Amino acid sequence: MTEVEAKKPQESLQDRLAQVVELLQRHRLVEDLTHRQEGQHQDRVEGLVHRQNLAELQRKLDDLHSADVAYILEALPLEDRLAIWQLVKADRDGDILLEVSDAVRETLLADMEDHEILAAAKEMDADELADLASELPRDVVHELMETLDAQQRERVRSALSYEEDRVGALMDFEMVTIREDVSLEVVLRYLRRLKELPGHTDKLFVVDYDGVLKGVLSIKRLLVNDPETQVAEVMANHPVSFHPDEDAYDAAQAFERYDLISAPVVDKNGKLIGRLTIDEMVDLIREESESEVLNMAGLREEEDIFASVWKSVRNRWAWLAVNLVTAFMASRVIGLFEGSIEKLVALAALMPIVAGIGGNSGNQTITMIVRAMALDQVSTGNGNTSRLIRKELGVGLINGLVWGGVIGVVAYALYDSWSLGVVMTAAMTLNLLLAALMGVLIPMTLMRFGRDPAMGASVMITAVTDSGGFFIFLGLASVFLL
Amino acid sequence: MTEVEAKKPQESLQDRLAQVVELLQRHRLVEDLTHRQEGQHQDRVEGLVHRQNLAELQRKLDDLHSADVAYILEALPLEDRLAIWQLVKADRDGDILLEVSDAVRETLLADMEDHEILAAAKEMDADELADLASELPRDVVHELMETLDAQQRERVRSALSYEEDRVGALMDFEMVTIREDVSLEVVLRYLRRLKELPGHTDKLFVVDYDGVLKGVLSIKRLLVNDPETQVAEVMANHPVSFHPDEDAYDAAQAFERYDLISAPVVDKNGKLIGRLTIDEMVDLIREESESEVLNMAGLREEEDIFASVWKSVRNRWAWLAVNLVTAFMASRVIGLFEGSIEKLVALAALMPIVAGIGGNSGNQTITMIVRAMALDQVSTGNGNTSRLIRKELGVGLINGLVWGGVIGVVAYALYDSWSLGVVMTAAMTLNLLLAALMGVLIPMTLMRFGRDPAMGASVMITAVTDSGGFFIFLGLASVFLL
Repeated sequence: MTEVEAKKPQESLQDRLAQVVELLQRHRLVEDLTHRQEGQHQDRVEGLVHRQNLAELQRKLDDLHSADVAYILEALPLEDRLAIWQLVKADRDGDILLEVSDAVRETLLADMEDHEILAAAKEMDADELADLASELPRDVVHELMETLDAQQRERVRSALSYEEDRVGALMDFEMVTIREDVSLEVVLRYLRRLKELPGHTDKLFVVDYDGVLKGVLSIKRLLVNDPETQVAEVMANHPVSFHPDEDAYDAAQAFERYDLISAPVVDKNGKLIGRLTIDEMVDLIREESESEVLNMAGLREEEDIFASVWKSVRNRWAWLAVNLVTAFMASRVIGLFEGSIEKLVALAALMPIVAGIGGNSGNQTITMIVRAMALDQVSTGNGNTSRLIRKELGVGLINGLVWGGVIGVVAYALYDSWSLGVVMTAAMTLNLLLAALMGVLIPMTLMRFGRDPAMGASVMITAVTDSGGFFIFLGLASVFLL
Repeated sequence: MTEVEAKKPQESLQDRLAQVVELLQRHRLVEDLTHRQEGQHQDRVEGLVHRQNLAELQRKLDDLHSADVAYILEALPLEDRLAIWQLVKADRDGDILLEVSDAVRETLLADMEDHEILAAAKEMDADELADLASELPRDVVHELMETLDAQQRERVRSALSYEEDRVGALMDFEMVTIREDVSLEVVLRYLRRLKELPGHTDKLFVVDYDGVLKGVLSIKRLLVNDPETQVAEVMANHPVSFHPDEDAYDAAQAFERYDLISAPVVDKNGKLIGRLTIDEMVDLIREESESEVLNMAGLREEEDIFASVWKSVRNRWAWLAVNLVTAFMASRVIGLFEGSIEKLVALAALMPIVAGIGGNSGNQTITMIVRAMALDQVSTGNGNTSRLIRKELGVGLINGLVWGGVIGVVAYALYDSWSLGVVMTAAMTLNLLLAALMGVLIPMTLMRFGRDPAMGASVMITAVTDSGGFFIFLGLASVFLL
């Protein structure tokens, strides 16, 4: 896609959203009026107002950067979103489709005719096409592939052959390549002939006649060195490069660590096959953190906030079902002690405190560990597990004695039984120790089995601290109080 | 700081960490042996082995990029971390200090003499100094400021005058400025004279004689256009620019949206005073998502995973205390119904199910809303609140009837009472509706009062669904079953 220069945002995005919504509502109002008078004599003035409103809205949208239009589409409920989508000029469809989230893109594509999709897709680069291919109607993809030249088709195929989380799926093919045995002057003249450079070109890729990467020449060096210098003298010989089957998130972390703007992707023979750019990596970093947050809450994927109720139910039901099972188990643990509760009903009132604090504390631990794992500071292998467990047990012990002590005193004051207070303190402490242990072990185990360590971690830790908390408290009470 | 070219990472970071740890342990082993024989005749061979080990470790560290050393320091427990820190060449101290997290930096600075800190800080740019100033000993900052020239001192002061979350605190001062009335050829010659360009230079800033920003000339355009062209003809006249008192996170979102690498910062008169670069913005994006995750779990700040137990307790106690109060309130709600529980002990076993599922469902809703708020798709103003509440109530109603129905049947089967089953279903449904409502209202209210919408949201929603769930279930049971 050709790059559109971002215009200076004079108003905030929120303001622009508000303006579009207002224009849209004004437009709707007039439409409603016109509609109501249907069959009657159509008032010309009204038609005019209508058209003026529409024109103003259209102008507003044309002025906006594609990314801003995408933002507005995301923030609007379905009906308004499609109304705006209809007004967006056909030649920007592709750009905008690439900017919106998956959930919103689905709603937009559903509203487009095949020939419109085809027209939008024709403007795209190979890597962009590959990104969208899975979401496009099969017929459209077929037709598209036929319109591409052999190289482009090969590139789309290659990008499609990698899993979504691999470097190969995120690379683009807009590399500027040069030879090492030419002078910088020649390079400068070559670039001038290209007329346009791809976005995020901070370095040129130096390849030999077989296309094998020999090094990279940063634009900075190209600019500050004497034009008579040879490329080989000033290029970097061992640039950070990636393989197409590497984990994309690892690549994103390398971009962050080494402050990269672009980096070459080479195959196993060292042949240059594509490049990664910081913009894709930033998107990835954001997506990773988002999915971590969502996973911890037991949500499966990003949900368009205006998604239909049914869609939301589907997104959320799985972990709720798991939670139902774990809650039922906790309930059965209580069931074991119904005799004790009948004898001392205070137990029923106090038991949720033990379970609740344990759940909260376990969630804190699990959040810490999942964070550290995401940053690669903890892995299943490097022998830190036992150290971490010791530390978390220490935190749990202190919190248990302190807060358990407080609530033990409160229990004593309420029910006038010091032994009940002691049982309460002991149960709190034990449950916090359990929470600490499982808070470390659950994400570690998930990771060892190759799962996302955040996946439903919150539901699992709560299951343990609920059942465990009820068992510990009611068990201790049955033994020592009754 | 001078930029170090990133070397091609031939092994993964994890591998390199493992190697350093191994070398360190070997070094320790020998040191222990030597230590044990103290007072005795010191074996020369052992001394040699010791020195060889140390030299190998030193070489390994010297080969690593500063960012990788920082990563290794983060992943090591305190004792090992300081051992490595001692070995890192003095001239890289500054680079590494800038790369590590706040929590780890504190431990490193505590291990340094004032004169070491001073030496490290002298290598830094004004914006980097400003970043660290708050963490350095007061004397050191004083001494440092005196060694700076007037312009540098002014820059440090200016950067320090902005709040941490403002653009002004994140900008650097490494702008390359040019005039609009010169040819590209002149610009090219000027750059060559500079010998080195600052990192992330993807555009040059065009200013007039008063330093007012007139536009930007992208390096891409500089390269592809005829050297005879005037800057004014090819520069972009309305570049995206920022003000120093703008919200830094808004700027990061703009970088992401418009795929920027660098952007000018101008004061209210349009005078160029600094620039923002993508690397700072990427860090910010990551920090924001991290603090969101931590906030939801009721953790106050990023905690070094090897922080002492005491430090961890301090980081976590506040929300645990809040949780204790809310759990106590829930317990008192149960206390109100002790009479009912005595009559029908099954209530004690079933009530945590109602509360637990409500909490889980409420957490899902709150996570969705907080996400949408972080992406600016929902604000307190734009009238979406009621629509979102309707949607979430719909989801809650369906989940309540379905899962409440399931658990109602189970309750009937277990306790052979259909009325108990019906009460269970009704209570589940009502509590899920409550969870949906509060899941929207809690983050909205936090935001309206200018707080972080994720702040302890999880503890709050659980408080509502626990107390609410117990009250609804036990209340319905008391009315209809007893």
